[in-house]
Amino acid sequence: MSSHFGELFRVSTFGESHGGGVGVVIDGGPPRLPLAEADLQADLARRRPGQSDIVTPRKEADRCRILSGVFGGQTLGTPIAVLVPNEDARPEAYTEMETAFRPSHADYTYQAKYGVRNWQGGGRSSARETIGRVAAGAVAKRALAALHPGLEIVAYVRSIHTLEAAVPDPGAVRLEQVEANIVRCPDPKVAEEMVALIKRMRAGGDSVGGIIECCVRGVPPGLGEPVFDRLEADLARAMLSLPATKGFEIGSGFASARMTGSEHNDPFEMRAGRVRTTSNRSGGVQGGISNGEDVVFRVAFKPTATITRAQRTVTVSGEDTALAARGRHDPCVLPRAVPMVEAMAALVVVDHALRQRAQNG
Amino acid sequence: MSSHFGELFRVSTFGESHGGGVGVVIDGGPPRLPLAEADLQADLARRRPGQSDIVTPRKEADRCRILSGVFGGQTLGTPIAVLVPNEDARPEAYTEMETAFRPSHADYTYQAKYGVRNWQGGGRSSARETIGRVAAGAVAKRALAALHPGLEIVAYVRSIHTLEAAVPDPGAVRLEQVEANIVRCPDPKVAEEMVALIKRMRAGGDSVGGIIECCVRGVPPGLGEPVFDRLEADLARAMLSLPATKGFEIGSGFASARMTGSEHNDPFEMRAGRVRTTSNRSGGVQGGISNGEDVVFRVAFKPTATITRAQRTVTVSGEDTALAARGRHDPCVLPRAVPMVEAMAALVVVDHALRQRAQNG
Amino acid sequence: MSSHFGELFRVSTFGESHGGGVGVVIDGGPPRLPLAEADLQADLARRRPGQSDIVTPRKEADRCRILSGVFGGQTLGTPIAVLVPNEDARPEAYTEMETAFRPSHADYTYQAKYGVRNWQGGGRSSARETIGRVAAGAVAKRALAALHPGLEIVAYVRSIHTLEAAVPDPGAVRLEQVEANIVRCPDPKVAEEMVALIKRMRAGGDSVGGIIECCVRGVPPGLGEPVFDRLEADLARAMLSLPATKGFEIGSGFASARMTGSEHNDPFEMRAGRVRTTSNRSGGVQGGISNGEDVVFRVAFKPTATITRAQRTVTVSGEDTALAARGRHDPCVLPRAVPMVEAMAALVVVDHALRQRAQNG
Amino acid sequence: MSSHFGELFRVSTFGESHGGGVGVVIDGGPPRLPLAEADLQADLARRRPGQSDIVTPRKEADRCRILSGVFGGQTLGTPIAVLVPNEDARPEAYTEMETAFRPSHADYTYQAKYGVRNWQGGGRSSARETIGRVAAGAVAKRALAALHPGLEIVAYVRSIHTLEAAVPDPGAVRLEQVEANIVRCPDPKVAEEMVALIKRMRAGGDSVGGIIECCVRGVPPGLGEPVFDRLEADLARAMLSLPATKGFEIGSGFASARMTGSEHNDPFEMRAGRVRTTSNRSGGVQGGISNGEDVVFRVAFKPTATITRAQRTVTVSGEDTALAARGRHDPCVLPRAVPMVEAMAALVVVDHALRQRAQNG
Repeated sequence: MSSHFGELFRVSTFGESHGGGVGVVIDGGPPRLPLAEADLQADLARRRPGQSDIVTPRKEADRCRILSGVFGGQTLGTPIAVLVPNEDARPEAYTEMETAFRPSHADYTYQAKYGVRNWQGGGRSSARETIGRVAAGAVAKRALAALHPGLEIVAYVRSIHTLEAAVPDPGAVRLEQVEANIVRCPDPKVAEEMVALIKRMRAGGDSVGGIIECCVRGVPPGLGEPVFDRLEADLARAMLSLPATKGFEIGSGFASARMTGSEHNDPFEMRAGRVRTTSNRSGGVQGGISNGEDVVFRVAFKPTATITRAQRTVTVSGEDTALAARGRHDPCVLPRAVPMVEAMAALVVVDHALRQRAQNG
Repeated sequence: MSSHFGELFRVSTFGESHGGGVGVVIDGGPPRLPLAEADLQADLARRRPGQSDIVTPRKEADRCRILSGVFGGQTLGTPIAVLVPNEDARPEAYTEMETAFRPSHADYTYQAKYGVRNWQGGGRSSARETIGRVAAGAVAKRALAALHPGLEIVAYVRSIHTLEAAVPDPGAVRLEQVEANIVRCPDPKVAEEMVALIKRMRAGGDSVGGIIECCVRGVPPGLGEPVFDRLEADLARAMLSLPATKGFEIGSGFASARMTGSEHNDPFEMRAGRVRTTSNRSGGVQGGISNGEDVVFRVAFKPTATITRAQRTVTVSGEDTALAARGRHDPCVLPRAVPMVEAMAALVVVDHALRQRAQNG
Repeated sequence: MSSHFGELFRVSTFGESHGGGVGVVIDGGPPRLPLAEADLQADLARRRPGQSDIVTPRKEADRCRILSGVFGGQTLGTPIAVLVPNEDARPEAYTEMETAFRPSHADYTYQAKYGVRNWQGGGRSSARETIGRVAAGAVAKRALAALHPGLEIVAYVRSIHTLEAAVPDPGAVRLEQVEANIVRCPDPKVAEEMVALIKRMRAGGDSVGGIIECCVRGVPPGLGEPVFDRLEADLARAMLSLPATKGFEIGSGFASARMTGSEHNDPFEMRAGRVRTTSNRSGGVQGGISNGEDVVFRVAFKPTATITRAQRTVTVSGEDTALAARGRHDPCVLPRAVPMVEAMAALVVVDHALRQRAQNG
Repeated sequence: MSSHFGELFRVSTFGESHGGGVGVVIDGGPPRLPLAEADLQADLARRRPGQSDIVTPRKEADRCRILSGVFGGQTLGTPIAVLVPNEDARPEAYTEMETAFRPSHADYTYQAKYGVRNWQGGGRSSARETIGRVAAGAVAKRALAALHPGLEIVAYVRSIHTLEAAVPDPGAVRLEQVEANIVRCPDPKVAEEMVALIKRMRAGGDSVGGIIECCVRGVPPGLGEPVFDRLEADLARAMLSLPATKGFEIGSGFASARMTGSEHNDPFEMRAGRVRTTSNRSGGVQGGISNGEDVVFRVAFKPTATITRAQRTVTVSGEDTALAARGRHDPCVLPRAVPMVEAMAALVVVDHALRQRAQNG
């Protein structure tokens, strides 16, 4: 259902932008994992508003509390509940949203679906909901570290608008490179241009989109399932469930549509005693199941819908009007979306790791 | 799990390329829908091998039998089991697959996952599995016709290799236009070039990829759920679960990454008493929920992995070797994938239609 | 999975006896239900420790906070998170439980399953977990009031040890009768004897079991599903998921095993224009689906495992030892279990009400 | 949903009493299990009509065909589809069921739920549906044999009407004892009386109920989950999902309601280096999780609803009428229900065995 994710490593997020807080319940994870609030805080800090001058200035420490499921510094195998209270909520900054639908936001569709909505800061459709995902992703990473020690998930900004980073090998990008700049792009030169572009956009009351690339390394062969729960299908769903996403591609992606089979196929060879491919247009997945190569995928993010320029829209009572956003928002969601992409990737991979252990030992 | 799809309108497919047959069990659909085998056969015929000279010549009538769930010409509300026996199976054409892994196929990953595989014609990873999906999709279309009479799903080939159809308005493409040529492209001129290209590819022992576009019209506002089960997320998963797919995008898709918010946002206006948008870069979905505009998405298909040119690979026992495909296969999967895309779209939409009725009446 | 319940009206409970608190996330319920914390508090008060002198004296106000999902006094249709902090936790009263397994408790099995456990007050196996269920049940009752206005769920203590209440017609028992005494038995004379018995048991360092009966009235025909998700099957699972339960029966129950068909069958007749039965040995369910008669079932509760008499047991390190409980506990769980039974019944019925609306409109 | 069972070892049954056939799709089971149709046939023969002169004379060989999921005599890890065609269907014997509702059958409730029903032989509510369960149970037993070699499931008739078998130790009952007589009661003397009773009942146009007991031996400690998916809760649901069941109890069951804690608790002791209990009133489950002792439970079956004596009922159009069954039916369902109970127990246990491996390795 709506706010649940995962078959075995199952998370349920809750909370709205304004209200008591946001959080997550994580069920089904392995017991005896070392876990403390600080472990979650590290990734939450990468998602936090106010972390740099190219993101929203909303002041939230996003300090989490683990309410259950951890005892003596270890997971118990029972549900881990995590709560992050809302602190800097300013509902008064959103009063016009009570009466008018923001273009390309979820205001109208929530109203159409439920006949009611929490109009303060976007309510449930706020990106604040992703706090629960990032916290759960941090737990998932801990579980993966125990299950498959070499496995590593690194996401980064690949492009913003027309600025594209040079990334010769996704498998070689290190977390420190990504975290070395506030836009989270491993190409330091392009990163600077990106920062400048985002600042220009904000100054002009506008916003901008881009692409995040993610590489999952050290995946053992055999994760993913045939038919519907293919690894790439579950990754696609996970990524398209993030706010502001419009597309997903794995390996060769859309470029494969312009290729021939003889160009595209990944030849097998024996290397260091293992079956390997000499190229990786498959993106680490064949027939829905990991083949041991890097799992590499890209996610397209649209420009933030909230802009301060006036836009045409309609009121709740059906009258044409115009709206210019107040409130605080990101001129570009990508820098803060990097840990979200990693978190969702971790949730998909850990779930398949547990499923694989269930069925195949 | 692996071979199940849907929360409320639930399908379970079964079967391998060679063996007793393939099929599907469909559970949770509404009762009292008029349904006969002929209703399924129409879409199965569009998916069938041997339907034209640009697809695989395997001779399968793909005649289906409804084993249960229909009585007196109506659905009973209980499981509908559909079976299509395998007829033209020639396991002897695949004996080399017993010992060598075909590049960019699922042979190696199935072996790595399960320690065993049915190597005849790809076994469970064969596109023959999609018969169950297309049959289920036909039932889903019947259910949608009862639930939302105006709703219509039309998919078509948008591009093959570098040949791209001119499609001024996805919302205006009619099924008859699509079915007017064997490649299922609504642009008749480009269609001819596509047919010629596919024939050239086959003659050269090669294959080719492309893009299918799909438009779901007449979707009422309110379908889809916040957070994880967004309509576009479920569509993405559904499409990436089809064989040979590498990417999914909705509305503006990857192009949105190069846009600004002021260019991208869809202004609202009142039109004929309803809330409408003046553009549709959202692709009919906002915040995961349909807004009443056309749902338009695209799916990237890689070139068929099976080619008759010799390719490098390895044997089951870990020796380097070369392999040139025998057996029968499609030089381009797209013409036969059009009904698969429609079927998966129908399964996603009907599931959300039932969920919406459950929660919101 | 373990801590999730329901297909459409889905609840996820969390929390341990000692720690940050206990609670629940409720997803999938209808929007626009009037809901306030006070609505939950009423049922929580009936479950609360310290409510009378025949229950555990642990001092917990069990004050709940709704963290999300409610806005302007109405449900939003998105997850409702409820948190009840733990207040009167005294882990020092349980230190012997760190080293020895309490007989007929979950100490040993949790250790065997997870290799770790929160030994303070039973951790996750504590009946304190049922707070989340009772809170969710209160929301479910609100949803049912909107969906099926006449529907009413009344549970009560039918017997304790050998003391059995006279209940001529389960369909006629009113909530006020049940709440008129601290043991929650609608037969006031037997209720007094029950209270006396429970006090005697506690004085003697012992405990006692009994039977709770529950009647769901005003159920429309058609709820429940054929085959696995029969209404009685889901009720059985729900009840056997409550702590200390050992049996479930519906309608004629175990007595039916000693009957003949001609004695047992419920004849149909037309009454006030509706199809009715003249007896109700079916317990309101036929073929897994409600027939419009009262749904009547009984649940057997064993005597509380915690007793202050010394008992034989073993230590975590595998040595024979003896253990006499300290800590606070109930000499008889039934008075506080009555709202738990109602809550679980409400969760089952509301889930089937939504499923029925999904499939059959 | 309705016709799906299991989280990881998932089965979907299909089919009606009259129509193309009945069957099951089994997904998620381990690969490389030896499996042939004969393995399923053994249990199907114990469920088959016409197997003795105390069951229905309907002539069905119930010969199964494995359509998929098995290759070279081994399971593939992908869906196993099993089909049993209907052979001796005589719809003409049921024509009165088109217009009148049989008392204590599902005719009326299916009609009320779906607005349509297959009235031939009970349609989907027929016990013929359990063929799919028994076939799936046979596969589950194979999987358990691989996962937990010592594990054994033995069910038997404990009582019919007032005739109760002497069973000093459920853990000592062997399959051969059970199969030594046609009523499947391990007490040969009482078995003879039961056979005579059943024959008398049929001669008198009546039917009779009884109790089946089941013992699962060799269960490792740790199977089952806290809170909702307790082993006993899932067993209760599984058993109450069988046709004609009215009650479930585990271990001490309803008798526990009349006991005190000091009488009821199972003391722990060390035995052969393992933690054991000296009694087994817990029925092998504590806190929802197996403790390594025998899992012992009982299921109450009502007398068959179909009797040849005339009974009061109503017609589809709402008129009072009388009905005496024709058609073929069992005067007592218990002899044929024994393999059904075993099958459902196997499905529950194998599912928890896989879940346990997923989470706890």
